[in-house]
Amino acid sequence: MKIEAVDFFYLSMPVVTNAGDGSQDALVVRLRAGGLEAWGECEASPLTSIASFVCPMSHGACRPVGASVLGEDVSSPADIARIAATIQWNSMDLLQAAHTWSGVEIALWDLVGKQRGEPVYRLLGYDKAYPKMPYASQLFGDTPQQTLEFCRAAKKLGYRAVKCGWGPFGRGTVLDDADHLNAAREGIGPDGILLIDAGQIWNEDVEAAAKRLPYLEAVKATWLEEPFNGSAYEAYGALAKRSGVVKLAGGEAAHNIHMARHTIDIGKVGFIQIDCGRIGGIGPAKQVADYAAGKGVTYVNHTFTTHLALCASIQPFAGLADHRICEYPVKPQPMAWEMCKTHIAPDKNGEVRVPEAPGLGIEMDLAAMKKYLVDAEIKVAGKVLYRTPSLA
Amino acid sequence: MKIEAVDFFYLSMPVVTNAGDGSQDALVVRLRAGGLEAWGECEASPLTSIASFVCPMSHGACRPVGASVLGEDVSSPADIARIAATIQWNSMDLLQAAHTWSGVEIALWDLVGKQRGEPVYRLLGYDKAYPKMPYASQLFGDTPQQTLEFCRAAKKLGYRAVKCGWGPFGRGTVLDDADHLNAAREGIGPDGILLIDAGQIWNEDVEAAAKRLPYLEAVKATWLEEPFNGSAYEAYGALAKRSGVVKLAGGEAAHNIHMARHTIDIGKVGFIQIDCGRIGGIGPAKQVADYAAGKGVTYVNHTFTTHLALCASIQPFAGLADHRICEYPVKPQPMAWEMCKTHIAPDKNGEVRVPEAPGLGIEMDLAAMKKYLVDAEIKVAGKVLYRTPSLA
Repeated sequence: MKIEAVDFFYLSMPVVTNAGDGSQDALVVRLRAGGLEAWGECEASPLTSIASFVCPMSHGACRPVGASVLGEDVSSPADIARIAATIQWNSMDLLQAAHTWSGVEIALWDLVGKQRGEPVYRLLGYDKAYPKMPYASQLFGDTPQQTLEFCRAAKKLGYRAVKCGWGPFGRGTVLDDADHLNAAREGIGPDGILLIDAGQIWNEDVEAAAKRLPYLEAVKATWLEEPFNGSAYEAYGALAKRSGVVKLAGGEAAHNIHMARHTIDIGKVGFIQIDCGRIGGIGPAKQVADYAAGKGVTYVNHTFTTHLALCASIQPFAGLADHRICEYPVKPQPMAWEMCKTHIAPDKNGEVRVPEAPGLGIEMDLAAMKKYLVDAEIKVAGKVLYRTPSLA
Repeated sequence: MKIEAVDFFYLSMPVVTNAGDGSQDALVVRLRAGGLEAWGECEASPLTSIASFVCPMSHGACRPVGASVLGEDVSSPADIARIAATIQWNSMDLLQAAHTWSGVEIALWDLVGKQRGEPVYRLLGYDKAYPKMPYASQLFGDTPQQTLEFCRAAKKLGYRAVKCGWGPFGRGTVLDDADHLNAAREGIGPDGILLIDAGQIWNEDVEAAAKRLPYLEAVKATWLEEPFNGSAYEAYGALAKRSGVVKLAGGEAAHNIHMARHTIDIGKVGFIQIDCGRIGGIGPAKQVADYAAGKGVTYVNHTFTTHLALCASIQPFAGLADHRICEYPVKPQPMAWEMCKTHIAPDKNGEVRVPEAPGLGIEMDLAAMKKYLVDAEIKVAGKVLYRTPSLA
């Protein structure tokens, strides 16, 4: 199938706030080839990613992502890997390229799956997609009382695992953090799985993070996520040595498989969190899942947007029965929820599964997308390089 | 000084080819504050970097670079570091941000230097700027004969050090590469310093790179640059163990100081090459220079564009007398040469020095810039977020 068109749709809530809520906008990719239509999603900064798809070439190793995609022939996973390798070379000096390509790559898996009549996880070599236990991914409250209420609410919704992150955590004293941790544990109850996300707050200050360890241990936190900058592997490794039963989690910032492997090998995380919309899509994410499994590290998806992104993010570890936990955005913005007709909802056991339909199996809601579609235009030297395409 | 305006100028040759020649376009930053005008430059993909400065916010950790810069107060190096830390946080999920911020950061050093009447290297804590020995940075020829001619020509121009890179190297057989290496050595003569740039051709295939080592040693190459993907530190480290007198060089892809340190600590390079237009500007580059010096690793600039970028790139190691070699683009495109009135030309000893004038000491040629200025416009939701500003 020849790739005939790659269209980018920039969707956004009418008002975007500075909360750490990644579901406020989205960059959706529609790919057309061989009479089929396939969908993918890039993570974050839609306008910048669109620019890196359409920008003029700077030189041979800094070409726009689009130049390596349009017109290419794709009929197999090997073809997807071939284009990925071309982009790694042709867009070597274009930093944003990894994020942009990620959404296109996801759409290519959807395409090949649809053409073969197989769900993506089968194309990845898995026989079966195991159920995952969704954890409610939410922000800390502004106060411990609010954190308590948020966690109680998640428990009431049936979540057995809850993640609290960002907000005030790490910004006040150690005891302030302890109050939030205690509130979270109280909210989810003694048996709930409690996950804590520090959102890189300590940059690479190992001692600052270490001061929280006794309190994390006291509330039986399963993991401490992103204590440091995503590239500060040594800081991760140093903290991991001291963190005892509280495992470290990280990796969402990885924009290539090398970075994910360093997070495992040097950072010594217990959980490797991969964002398919950043690392280059489903192919490299699956390589990380294989690598993690071989090292006794648990793979977890990183997702805070739509069910299209969620579905893509589960495929790489769908067949790993023991890698059970799955990030699941609890309170996405209406845009992020409405744009997909298909949702990955918890079943009566509170577990989620990827669809068995061909490709990603996510049907888009074009009418809903229209509501949130942002009109954008990029012109260079009098030529329109991008204009929001029609959803029809 | 309050930052009143940050203007981006996208310059380009009329025709950009897919040669590995980074001087075909440029993104120049003009910053106005306190009645002063200062200049900086971002490396590669002007349109994408402009987009990441002006894009709408996606969420609290994915804000446009501009949001953390405009209106800020700057009067010291500490202020520059403060804004850098803000951007690291506010634009955490915006991959391109590091490249965009780099050019702004460089302009901020120019600004503070101009305000204080001091060259940038002094603001960095150096008493003196030592002369550097420029190496002629050029591409391999298509044939060994052409490589020979290129190297002879560089020698004739007075260069005592020559780097050959990219082109056919690593794409054919080991013996093809050996022919080019022998031609290069013959061209520069027995006493010239010969540097070889593989441009990531082997990705992370250590054996493929290792096969070239005997030939690199035979022609007394001082370094083998970027044999692998910039993040493949383990591959670098494995090759470094076997490379003997031929040292490895790398680091140009680093977009934060962590990546540069990994290249040193895990990659075991003998030469760390930093692009100020990518790593976040002059401040982090100076931190890498300090770190390298402490580890016995030689710092080298990575520059393949204008003399504005060249001047910025020398500042971080200007005061390190023993770190002698300096990348110097030999055949930049007319645009890259003409846009600066001030050039850093080799003196009678064939050495180059940064200007002693305040700031970066580079005067821009506005009339020349106008000739190469690209007209660009970015509109979102009916609002113009960017339009090529006037050079007046």
